[in-house]
Amino acid sequence: MTAPSITVSPDPQLQYLLRLADTCLIHAQRLAEWCGHAPILEEDIALTNLSLDLIGQARALYTHAGLIEQRATGGGHGEDEYAFLREERDYRNPTLVELPMRRGISGPAEDFAGTVLRNLLVATLLKQVWEALSAPGGTVDAELAAIAAKSLKEARYHQQHSADWVVRLGDGTEESARRLRDALQRQWPYVAELFELDAIDEAAAAAGLGPRMADLRAAWEAEIGQVFTAAGLTMPKATGFRSTGRQGVHSEHMGFLLAEMQSLQRAYPGGTW
Amino acid sequence: MTAPSITVSPDPQLQYLLRLADTCLIHAQRLAEWCGHAPILEEDIALTNLSLDLIGQARALYTHAGLIEQRATGGGHGEDEYAFLREERDYRNPTLVELPMRRGISGPAEDFAGTVLRNLLVATLLKQVWEALSAPGGTVDAELAAIAAKSLKEARYHQQHSADWVVRLGDGTEESARRLRDALQRQWPYVAELFELDAIDEAAAAAGLGPRMADLRAAWEAEIGQVFTAAGLTMPKATGFRSTGRQGVHSEHMGFLLAEMQSLQRAYPGGTW
Repeated sequence: MTAPSITVSPDPQLQYLLRLADTCLIHAQRLAEWCGHAPILEEDIALTNLSLDLIGQARALYTHAGLIEQRATGGGHGEDEYAFLREERDYRNPTLVELPMRRGISGPAEDFAGTVLRNLLVATLLKQVWEALSAPGGTVDAELAAIAAKSLKEARYHQQHSADWVVRLGDGTEESARRLRDALQRQWPYVAELFELDAIDEAAAAAGLGPRMADLRAAWEAEIGQVFTAAGLTMPKATGFRSTGRQGVHSEHMGFLLAEMQSLQRAYPGGTW
Repeated sequence: MTAPSITVSPDPQLQYLLRLADTCLIHAQRLAEWCGHAPILEEDIALTNLSLDLIGQARALYTHAGLIEQRATGGGHGEDEYAFLREERDYRNPTLVELPMRRGISGPAEDFAGTVLRNLLVATLLKQVWEALSAPGGTVDAELAAIAAKSLKEARYHQQHSADWVVRLGDGTEESARRLRDALQRQWPYVAELFELDAIDEAAAAAGLGPRMADLRAAWEAEIGQVFTAAGLTMPKATGFRSTGRQGVHSEHMGFLLAEMQSLQRAYPGGTW
């Protein structure tokens, strides 16, 4: 038998799209783990809905990536193949979104603070990305501009929703504020990677495909800073640590996440509903 | 593409062997999760070694099961196929051994007490099984008798090691005793299943293949009772709850365990070292 994994072209425009799509997909996967476990029913449904929005964004991006790969190499892949049949090193999400937020399947909701904080960090970034891509002249790729315009509405809601929660916890009880501060200390070292400049971002900018993430940092920090101020949080100092998920080199958690996420497609190759 | 899972004969002698093998394998899988996380280095190595012993026992039983299935149906399977390529409903371990003992990949070692308690419950059962099977006239299956004789030495050590820990924790600090009592309350409802009598055990006894688990209960309880007394534990009352893992109907945790355990073989079908 041959390995059922797919291999993906290193074409930089394709990789740029996969970074965005994988960020949405892996972030969605972690959010979906809250289904049935959130501290209140409304938030249980809200987190699952954020997850569904993100999966929809990932699907649109993967489908479009298939066309880009088709043009670049003569052979593209379908959305399910990108989502489920790559090997770990071919996923391009930043490490931040793969970090586990809950402990165990049936454990208590200990890291709800970490979840809403990460939602804020990621939704604010995605909002910046979609704004840049959907602005006039933001991309030469009309389909990507359309995906961005649709996704922007969702990301604005995600950003607002998570900002509300960060303020509520930061300005809440002593315990909720402490948990939020602890989560910030854990997550901040992974923020630097979101804005690292490299050849893929440079190629995307040069081709007019989309913005360098590095160019979005100032606006991201300004927006995050406003929420932090309202929440009584101080933006931590930068650290020397650099995570490398966007290069395909992931944390120890990614293999476990993929094992779970891919299990159905691996056990029933080509299975459909 | 076709689904790469195997289907297994319902032959009762085969199912009897798979129950033993799956108990060893799934128990080993949970123990292996402690690798790198146990509270002290010596115990980290000890738990991993117990796991390796159990995997060795599972391997011998799966290989033998392949011969039994070959005789029953004309087509048997290899050890890796039984271990990795069955679907959840075809695993026959009791639910007790699939319950998660640790919270998350990098979480604190919160349930060490539960781990040593479960080790005691399971090792004492396996010791009884191997004793019965390796006794003169214990089984008509010479190969199974040989596997039992080898496994008995290991199970005796596992039982002693876990009994020592249960006494140490039960007779230790207030916190260690409380954690042990909590673990016992959580696990005891799953004990009844270990000794449930059904057609597979009856068929094994009728064919002279091996003992009914129900017939081992009195000796098991006597041995467990001695350890509990030394540990200051009271044997809980029986509950009406019945888990059904030996029938192939597992807890919510089993799918996640298999997703992780099978991931490599599913991604690289037929892969070997």
